[in-house]
Amino acid sequence: MYLHKELETLTRPEIERLQLERLQKTVRHCMNSPFYKQRFAENHLSPEDIRSLDDLQKIPFTTKQDLRDTYPFGLASVPLEKTVRLHSSSGTTGNPTVILHTQKDLDEWANAVARCLYMVGLRPGDIFQNSSGYGMFTGGLGFQYGAERLGMLTVPAAAGNTKRQLKFISDFGTTALHAIPSYAARMYEVMQEMGIDPRRDTKLRTLIIGAEPHSEEQRRRIEDMLGVKAYNSFGMSEMCGPGVAFECQEQNGLHIWEDYYIVEIINPDTLEPVPEGEVGELVLTTINREAMPLLRYRTRDLTRILPGECPCGRHHKRLDRMKGRSDDMIILKGVNIFPIQIETILLQFKELGSDYLITLETAESNDEMTVEVELSQLFTDDYGRLQSLTREITRQLKDEILVTPRVKLVPKGTLPKSEGKAVRVKDLRKTF
Amino acid sequence: MYLHKELETLTRPEIERLQLERLQKTVRHCMNSPFYKQRFAENHLSPEDIRSLDDLQKIPFTTKQDLRDTYPFGLASVPLEKTVRLHSSSGTTGNPTVILHTQKDLDEWANAVARCLYMVGLRPGDIFQNSSGYGMFTGGLGFQYGAERLGMLTVPAAAGNTKRQLKFISDFGTTALHAIPSYAARMYEVMQEMGIDPRRDTKLRTLIIGAEPHSEEQRRRIEDMLGVKAYNSFGMSEMCGPGVAFECQEQNGLHIWEDYYIVEIINPDTLEPVPEGEVGELVLTTINREAMPLLRYRTRDLTRILPGECPCGRHHKRLDRMKGRSDDMIILKGVNIFPIQIETILLQFKELGSDYLITLETAESNDEMTVEVELSQLFTDDYGRLQSLTREITRQLKDEILVTPRVKLVPKGTLPKSEGKAVRVKDLRKTF
Ligand SMILES: [Zn+2]
Ligand SMILES: [Zn+2]
Repeated sequence: MYLHKELETLTRPEIERLQLERLQKTVRHCMNSPFYKQRFAENHLSPEDIRSLDDLQKIPFTTKQDLRDTYPFGLASVPLEKTVRLHSSSGTTGNPTVILHTQKDLDEWANAVARCLYMVGLRPGDIFQNSSGYGMFTGGLGFQYGAERLGMLTVPAAAGNTKRQLKFISDFGTTALHAIPSYAARMYEVMQEMGIDPRRDTKLRTLIIGAEPHSEEQRRRIEDMLGVKAYNSFGMSEMCGPGVAFECQEQNGLHIWEDYYIVEIINPDTLEPVPEGEVGELVLTTINREAMPLLRYRTRDLTRILPGECPCGRHHKRLDRMKGRSDDMIILKGVNIFPIQIETILLQFKELGSDYLITLETAESNDEMTVEVELSQLFTDDYGRLQSLTREITRQLKDEILVTPRVKLVPKGTLPKSEGKAVRVKDLRKTF
Repeated sequence: MYLHKELETLTRPEIERLQLERLQKTVRHCMNSPFYKQRFAENHLSPEDIRSLDDLQKIPFTTKQDLRDTYPFGLASVPLEKTVRLHSSSGTTGNPTVILHTQKDLDEWANAVARCLYMVGLRPGDIFQNSSGYGMFTGGLGFQYGAERLGMLTVPAAAGNTKRQLKFISDFGTTALHAIPSYAARMYEVMQEMGIDPRRDTKLRTLIIGAEPHSEEQRRRIEDMLGVKAYNSFGMSEMCGPGVAFECQEQNGLHIWEDYYIVEIINPDTLEPVPEGEVGELVLTTINREAMPLLRYRTRDLTRILPGECPCGRHHKRLDRMKGRSDDMIILKGVNIFPIQIETILLQFKELGSDYLITLETAESNDEMTVEVELSQLFTDDYGRLQSLTREITRQLKDEILVTPRVKLVPKGTLPKSEGKAVRVKDLRKTF
């Protein structure tokens, strides 16, 4: 039931003892990084000041901008010749970020991913297909090393080429697939076009979904379509990649591995901790990393800590599914709106498919929102029903987001498809 | 000087003792594969019949067709649940092949690649950028694991996006690059466009080139352009991938690791061994593989064993650079021609660039060859000189390949560019 029984079943006091020990060690180690050394000096702080977990709050936040400012290697806490892997967000323009890893970091990262995969019931004998991009994108090598560590036959399918993915699934008898939710839905569409019944024609039983915010309704829909159990995965390249937090078989939130990370949830405006259980920005401190530990890293991801105990026996805290990015927040007519709120409403209508597009435009100096959403394949073409459906969706959206969007129902397959992350929001507003 | 001193400096008798021991073990192990079990039975052969290295010849060849016929898992010699990696040549159509690996296989593969990289002088502290495709293509994960094993900072740049590659090289201080030769040349072109002087503006010192046949002249040209030492790498997915044979710092042929492989060179028509030192088809037997050993695998690659001792102290045999594929052989007017013969001639002219295209066409029931070749950037536009140059190239080609091609000099940048393997031969002949 547990891959690392001792670490997975630590009691809360044991977790906190281990965290303090690792935090103190990490903070001392960070003094090898010119960045943290200076930042501690500026704040008249020394590693000895961290005597309890509460003392973590004395340490300033680390931000993505800090990563950019110290690009490429200024945040390393070990000499470069001790590092063996680099992941970079770099394109040809913009401000790239770099995360460095030692051999031990890669090893612990693989352990974390293996632990997640084992937790959802995967075992040697399972055939694990990874449809992430490889190379710089951490979902590729991250799941590859973790799935191999667990001892599964791992298929590095990489991103794209849906027909080839389906051929692999059927030829190799793939039992577990890692895919972003919109791509899992896309695979199902192509299966339908090709006459493949996932239940009858494949051995697929487990789906790992992550990297893209999605709702519970969307998860259940994907599970129904593909005949699988779908587990939520959370990771980010700044925290290595996949393996940070993962659902257990209870599917009731994502256990975050507190032997690797200390979790805080803060109000992104005041930077103060939010009250227990409230939504805020996730802040993570790495306490099991060698090349490039990050102290109080502001992830920009919005979530909350779920209350209560999990029946699985793990006391590692559970994160709610991500509510989007603090940067993704739409401000329309002075109201804060998260795309996930809209998605949650749309997915409650069985008449609708899972693809939608939110467009923000300026019409006569007025900012307006249009929500285009695809009808599901089964829905018939009846003008009266479409009209009343449109009204009902509009009403429910208004209740949720407090502004009235223009809702447009469009035929299935009309909205642009992508094999990568779906683009859900188009902001065409004039800026002044 | 040696990463695995004991194995790298074995004497010939020691190598052969080790090979016999490993061969016998491998053959016994192969009896776990239904394919080999049946094939041995059909040939009235049993593992006990292999008493010397010469007895290898009793074993039938394994071919790519055998891999296809047993797709996906029929050639495995271990239960599937012991395997952790799969590489497949599969597209959506055609006959794919699969190679399986256990954890131990991946480990030994990483060791072999690390040994190669160490042999050319790379060390922890070097920054190794890999421009291979990742995922199913073995050049990605193969070099990734090997370079990490050696302890270099490994940059999984993956294929394509030349400007991003160059940004990585300059930002990270990349000292060693793995690229196919035509892509290395392409990178240099983009450097020139961007005003980057590789000697002045980069720390690049070592280039690993492979996967594409190329001549000594082409290597020297790439070395001159980029200011690096370029080392030949040979691998193929059926033999794991990279790490099969590699040049040492003497640059005088590729040491093939005889603790991993037994080498034979055969005449592809008669299937008999060629006389010592003659060119023929490379046949390899894996003697250090667990999931899927291959006995006497016909690689289709043409090469020869180079005579003499290497000053580096390694007694592992040296392969000559690949002379192309036995399938790539052009038969024109009854003459056997390898594209490498043409390339070798072309690259001797400093007036010419490195891109060329061989087109075969039928004109009035006559098969003809056209060789288009790009002029180098520096060459001036003088009709008389171009004419005499064309005549001289034609004469030398005729001497080498025994037919007279039509030679066309074209301006630099005219021939189609690709970021993958260059297409060198277009066969448009009518078949009857
Ligand atoms: Zn749980
Ligand atoms: Zn040598």
